[in-house]
Amino acid sequence: MEKKITVLPGDGIGPEVIAAAVRVLKVIGKRYNHDFQLGYAAIGGAAIDQFHNPLPEKTIEMCKESDAILLGAVGGPKWDNNPAELRPEKGLLTIRKTFDLFANLRPVKAFPSLLNASPLKREVAENVDLMIVRELTGGIYFGEKHRTEEEATDLNIYSRHEIERIVDKAFELAKLRKGRLCSVDKANVLETSRLWRQIVEEKKEQYPDVTVEHNLVDSVAMKLITNPGHYDVVVTDNMFGDILSDESSVITGSLGVLPSASIRSDHFGLYEPVHGSAPEIAGEGTANPAAAILSVAMMLRYSFGMTVEAEEIEKAVNDVFNDGYYTADLVKNNEHFLTTDEWTDKVIAK
Amino acid sequence: MEKKITVLPGDGIGPEVIAAAVRVLKVIGKRYNHDFQLGYAAIGGAAIDQFHNPLPEKTIEMCKESDAILLGAVGGPKWDNNPAELRPEKGLLTIRKTFDLFANLRPVKAFPSLLNASPLKREVAENVDLMIVRELTGGIYFGEKHRTEEEATDLNIYSRHEIERIVDKAFELAKLRKGRLCSVDKANVLETSRLWRQIVEEKKEQYPDVTVEHNLVDSVAMKLITNPGHYDVVVTDNMFGDILSDESSVITGSLGVLPSASIRSDHFGLYEPVHGSAPEIAGEGTANPAAAILSVAMMLRYSFGMTVEAEEIEKAVNDVFNDGYYTADLVKNNEHFLTTDEWTDKVIAK
Ligand SMILES: CC(C)[C@H](C(=O)O)[C@@H](O)C(=O)O
Ligand SMILES: CC(C)[C@H](C(=O)O)[C@@H](O)C(=O)O
Repeated sequence: MEKKITVLPGDGIGPEVIAAAVRVLKVIGKRYNHDFQLGYAAIGGAAIDQFHNPLPEKTIEMCKESDAILLGAVGGPKWDNNPAELRPEKGLLTIRKTFDLFANLRPVKAFPSLLNASPLKREVAENVDLMIVRELTGGIYFGEKHRTEEEATDLNIYSRHEIERIVDKAFELAKLRKGRLCSVDKANVLETSRLWRQIVEEKKEQYPDVTVEHNLVDSVAMKLITNPGHYDVVVTDNMFGDILSDESSVITGSLGVLPSASIRSDHFGLYEPVHGSAPEIAGEGTANPAAAILSVAMMLRYSFGMTVEAEEIEKAVNDVFNDGYYTADLVKNNEHFLTTDEWTDKVIAK
Repeated sequence: MEKKITVLPGDGIGPEVIAAAVRVLKVIGKRYNHDFQLGYAAIGGAAIDQFHNPLPEKTIEMCKESDAILLGAVGGPKWDNNPAELRPEKGLLTIRKTFDLFANLRPVKAFPSLLNASPLKREVAENVDLMIVRELTGGIYFGEKHRTEEEATDLNIYSRHEIERIVDKAFELAKLRKGRLCSVDKANVLETSRLWRQIVEEKKEQYPDVTVEHNLVDSVAMKLITNPGHYDVVVTDNMFGDILSDESSVITGSLGVLPSASIRSDHFGLYEPVHGSAPEIAGEGTANPAAAILSVAMMLRYSFGMTVEAEEIEKAVNDVFNDGYYTADLVKNNEHFLTTDEWTDKVIAK
């Protein structure tokens, strides 16, 4: 197959982990005879420095002509005091909205060999295998906003269409996984949540093999810590999803290995590690490339339908961990660790 | 001193734990020569059953004439399908708004003898001593709402005055504690958060002995689990506070021992356990009264200025745990536990 991929390395450790992920992608391309055509473009702080715009028109054009986007990370203290329009995360919000990437998928799965790094007890975290499905282009993020010196407002707004498509996506994912869906809202307080809950109830008729529960966001924030193994697919709105997906990302103690996908209905998608740009360690060759590599696996699976190739990458990563090879973020003070490149070599060898 | 207290036992285990807390209150009254005058009234499901109203006018009147309110818990499956106006939690929302209880204080402190019950590793949870200060009468909870079959909206709205008073309260609390304040917002997305952050910046000049950090809600949702010992006072808005205070309540593994206060500027306040009404164990005499008893301690401290009395209760609770006496919720399968009353006897004996 021939696939065009726009690569957006971004800021901080973004370029390093993306370089590692691209190496893995090329190996898969060769082995399975796929023609992956890569084009590089700027986003975030790097784009602000070069083009005075966190998402330059040229980048948007290149993404439009491609089948998927691979992103490193954006942001850093250098741009923290810029006005909103010239901040790296504005690039992220704009790319999500421009390409209608309404479904953010954040899988969290325990790697048994990494559980020592978890803040949770082993018995709490060991069976975790969940996916947060977050609505990404609506809600309070994009509703009307106002501010004066005396008052400020943000409008949380959802249309039926916006809720239906994310709920459908979550049901489809649950069907392919363990068949359990938890819909999270604050229906005892919010009207958007009541509409959300009503639509989940309507939709569930169409997915008889998925069991559904509704749960309040405050209660889920607790249960994700006390009993994370309970969850399979968790679907929620943009704001709650922002909080719960970050909360979930610490369960297994390995933020550095978590990938994410932000997709639209036609399989086009953006893939990026969950971790940030970590400017304090950029350029040292110590970044963990696992999340970027696993983001490539998600791209192969969700945008290109290459399940076998995706599984091969996931298995290789798991095996390298099981063999006891770790990058600096996953070892305690004096233990031995591999550099970004050495660790990537191990994955490729598998 | 003479103090009038309105007691609202509520639903489920509410009446049992309140009975235990009242016993402790009476002992303190006798010992320190305070005249605590108690009046009982209905709220929640119990009030719906009796008066067809989750917060009857009679209850409001009695609260108005008192110096503080002691509440058990509200809610239960029996009323879950009622219309919004006839649901137990409506009583809670109305009492908060009617009495302008804008500051919700949720302390979370590790009891070393209870850490086995925590989902977190001992070394992560053991030094936790934080307080979430949640704005309780504004924001998206009380902004304008709309819903049709096609669209729903909730307005998040904050005035300068509403933010100033909760921020002041948080600074004052931080000053009396470890002098550290973390203000939580989503300033990279929300205008209400930008106003919030600006006001915290303005206020901090008035509190030179408090160090302030701003942090994003998604990041705090992670750090509360990976490094909860980092926090002293955490201040945030109504919606974020709902999520973060419940998330925090599981850190130490002892939800059943956490008290809360909801206060206004003049020391009037409502005190209640963090735990719910647990209808499944109501009437069995196994409920943990520690949270209700510690809520009485908060009442003595924050509404009546009785610091010595409050500390005596807190010390007694801590000592009883250290002596190895637990209620059913805190022991594993076959271990010995005390009933609600027996455990309360131990506290009183101290
Ligand atoms: C940078 C920020 C605007 C963004 C969000 O809140 O969506 C980030 O936290 C994320 O989750 O990708
Ligand atoms: C019952 C509900 C409306 C309430 C809230 O969200 O404020 C509860 O969760 C709480 O935190 O006291």
